[in-house]
Amino acid sequence: MTEYKKVTQEIVDKLINIVGERNVIWNEPDKLENYSHDEITDKKYAQMPDVAVKPKNAQEIAEIMKLANKEQVPVTPRGAGSGLSGGAVPIYGGIVMLFDRMNKILEIDKTNMMAVVEPGVITNELNQLIEPDGLFFAGYPMSVESCYIGGNLAENAGGGRAVKYGVTGRYIMGLEFVTPEGEILNLGGKLMKNVVGFDLLKLLIGSEGTLGIFTKVIIKLLPVPKARVDLLVPFADPETAINAVPRIMTESGIIPTAIEFMDKLSFETSYKFLNEHFSHDDAGAMLLIELDGTDPEVLEKEYEMVGKLCQDNGALEVYIADNHTTIERVWRVRRNVAEAFMVYSPVQSLEDIVVPIGSIPKILKDIKTIAEKHDVLIPTYGHAGDGNLHATVVKKQEMSLEKWEETLPKVLLDLYAKTHEYGGSISGEHGIGHKRKKYMVDSVGAPAVELMKRIKRAFDPNNILNPGKIIDA
Amino acid sequence: MTEYKKVTQEIVDKLINIVGERNVIWNEPDKLENYSHDEITDKKYAQMPDVAVKPKNAQEIAEIMKLANKEQVPVTPRGAGSGLSGGAVPIYGGIVMLFDRMNKILEIDKTNMMAVVEPGVITNELNQLIEPDGLFFAGYPMSVESCYIGGNLAENAGGGRAVKYGVTGRYIMGLEFVTPEGEILNLGGKLMKNVVGFDLLKLLIGSEGTLGIFTKVIIKLLPVPKARVDLLVPFADPETAINAVPRIMTESGIIPTAIEFMDKLSFETSYKFLNEHFSHDDAGAMLLIELDGTDPEVLEKEYEMVGKLCQDNGALEVYIADNHTTIERVWRVRRNVAEAFMVYSPVQSLEDIVVPIGSIPKILKDIKTIAEKHDVLIPTYGHAGDGNLHATVVKKQEMSLEKWEETLPKVLLDLYAKTHEYGGSISGEHGIGHKRKKYMVDSVGAPAVELMKRIKRAFDPNNILNPGKIIDA
Repeated sequence: MTEYKKVTQEIVDKLINIVGERNVIWNEPDKLENYSHDEITDKKYAQMPDVAVKPKNAQEIAEIMKLANKEQVPVTPRGAGSGLSGGAVPIYGGIVMLFDRMNKILEIDKTNMMAVVEPGVITNELNQLIEPDGLFFAGYPMSVESCYIGGNLAENAGGGRAVKYGVTGRYIMGLEFVTPEGEILNLGGKLMKNVVGFDLLKLLIGSEGTLGIFTKVIIKLLPVPKARVDLLVPFADPETAINAVPRIMTESGIIPTAIEFMDKLSFETSYKFLNEHFSHDDAGAMLLIELDGTDPEVLEKEYEMVGKLCQDNGALEVYIADNHTTIERVWRVRRNVAEAFMVYSPVQSLEDIVVPIGSIPKILKDIKTIAEKHDVLIPTYGHAGDGNLHATVVKKQEMSLEKWEETLPKVLLDLYAKTHEYGGSISGEHGIGHKRKKYMVDSVGAPAVELMKRIKRAFDPNNILNPGKIIDA
Repeated sequence: MTEYKKVTQEIVDKLINIVGERNVIWNEPDKLENYSHDEITDKKYAQMPDVAVKPKNAQEIAEIMKLANKEQVPVTPRGAGSGLSGGAVPIYGGIVMLFDRMNKILEIDKTNMMAVVEPGVITNELNQLIEPDGLFFAGYPMSVESCYIGGNLAENAGGGRAVKYGVTGRYIMGLEFVTPEGEILNLGGKLMKNVVGFDLLKLLIGSEGTLGIFTKVIIKLLPVPKARVDLLVPFADPETAINAVPRIMTESGIIPTAIEFMDKLSFETSYKFLNEHFSHDDAGAMLLIELDGTDPEVLEKEYEMVGKLCQDNGALEVYIADNHTTIERVWRVRRNVAEAFMVYSPVQSLEDIVVPIGSIPKILKDIKTIAEKHDVLIPTYGHAGDGNLHATVVKKQEMSLEKWEETLPKVLLDLYAKTHEYGGSISGEHGIGHKRKKYMVDSVGAPAVELMKRIKRAFDPNNILNPGKIIDA
């Protein structure tokens, strides 16, 4: 394990020289506490930084990285802090790097249908700006209203529209980034194809801030779909709902934008949190299916076909939301499930498994069995159309905290074992961070972990940038 | 530079022990000559292997790699040999590895819409097999009728449909591969999302057979578009044709499947080669625009809109091909341009630059200036919809071979400098191999090359797998 130095007044003075006094937070524990955790509630994953800095460009970041290498102080980049695996937590203290000042949309290039942005831009702000031009960025994490684009890249964020549009990485065509040793590099460009050597750009995406710090991002935009419709489809039980998912796609030949799934406990909790009421009392599960396209007439044909397939496969009803207000209303329910659960029961572990879509019905049954075996609740919701399920392990009221601490690891071992049995993976979009680090060897095997360690050392020989995440190099 | 051993009878005996006598080619120079080159005609890029082997599975490949590491003999994997940058040429001799026996389509999983194949499967064979199921693999290199899927992955093949569907890598969800040191690893699966550590899968794609040997590939399939139409659109000159390209997409909001470009010399040469005649004598350039979709009526609306935009932007005519025979006929012309040129003039350098689509009109003018300055021909054709242009530097009849050898490097320097000026890249889909290795530092910068060298060493400490390609590690 690398030995790190504590940040001293002398190092802080050097940081002030680089970014200016007002952009260094030091000796202010109340402020620094904000940067000690992400959205995981469990305090055992939190750690205070020694200092926080707000650079304004790649040059300042390069200087900070050179200083950190010289002084052997770790640096942890942090976007909006909306992560769910501890990726932005400075687990060895040191410097937390913030991107609040790097929040400019630098260019909207309509001819090439590309945007150039800094990493601190909020995802939704980009889409709001370009919508009048008939363009959109197809990345769509559930935290779209708060998360930063830099964080989306670091996690290779997925979200609700991956069924049709894929994940964030598909749209990243160019990058400026600072290496852990403090070099400024440019990769790719406003280019649709590019095969000049190893695909460093794709390697950086999803590397959770351990291989480089993004300072400029070139994003491919798409023509914004002119028509959009959502179907809210209640089913009697989760199995029936989930069984319908692969059938909808293979029988219609239509790839929906999104197929979201919520079990009863999930949607009821969210409705309650939002102070709303859903009338279908006999519903045991719900699908939220979104379709989009260039032509409203075609879309009508398509949603009728999809709606009919739902009914043929056991839907209790098909509600259609085809205007901005109703669409926003159904998505609010889905988007707020995680937050509603936090309020309802903060002692929990939000999981992020992904399996082949054909195996979802089977693993749902297994999840039920695992919950009963360990006497916990595991409400499940998520992105059924791409197999990514947020099974959330929740402590029952009557279980003691000691018992919970002892039980949770066993639940996860069972859940992950089943996930691997179906050829699945323990994280679809939240990443490893330090929360899931100990499961890496079981997940991808020792030789793959060894390759990752060597790659980390190739980029970061002194193990300065976000150490202790994903793997221990 | 690594010192390699010559393959001896003793090593050949060990190879025979692994793969069997009939799967080793040794002391047969006529047969081995086939594996000394790819599709580059220039003999200076060719090199004879010592021996060729045909393993049948990952276990045999792992044994070969362990042997090669022990004996310090280089191994060069070779697909169909349809490459265009020398990636499959054994430039240090040693072992060429062939995949003729690993040509099985192992599984078509309709529920998950995935195929599992061995690397020696011909790309088109997969599509022919799955078409009756209403599925297709969207990778579409121009050599689709001969190239192997393993080679597509190694080069991250692009081709004609990348405008809408992206390149090969987008569809690769899982991999079994053998590391240069002889470990068998599995990455990903039948999964649409997966963020468990560094994206080794994406790093391997496009690594030109230098980081690992693919032994099993999991491919995401799409519902096959039920309707397809091609527009063949002659223009008076290349500038007018190319100026229309970004306008077609931004003004219609439609992303065509393909927008291919041919200048006069290119399409005339191909028509002549195919013994056909094209009636539009005043055409100085041509666009071939393909649209596809689920609904024939929508497609009709779309192609009328695109056709009208072409006419508004200077098209001389819009020919519509909407059945299999006519579609195949127009694509044959485009697919045969490269081969027609080989016959017409084998002394040439087929280039593969890519620029932002908005910069294509400008670089076309520059290409004309460069051709005149150096007294060579540079006919240009390619994938205009994604900015990837196969400018082909061709020796004029009257130029001596000595003068050509002296001129070509200067032409390339000028061409690449202009490409970089527009934020472009020297290879969109053919790769670096050893043909373009010396331009790497100018292309991506010394720090990026250094990172690539370290990555190569991380995977292949003895520099055994396809050495001397992309970079000198």
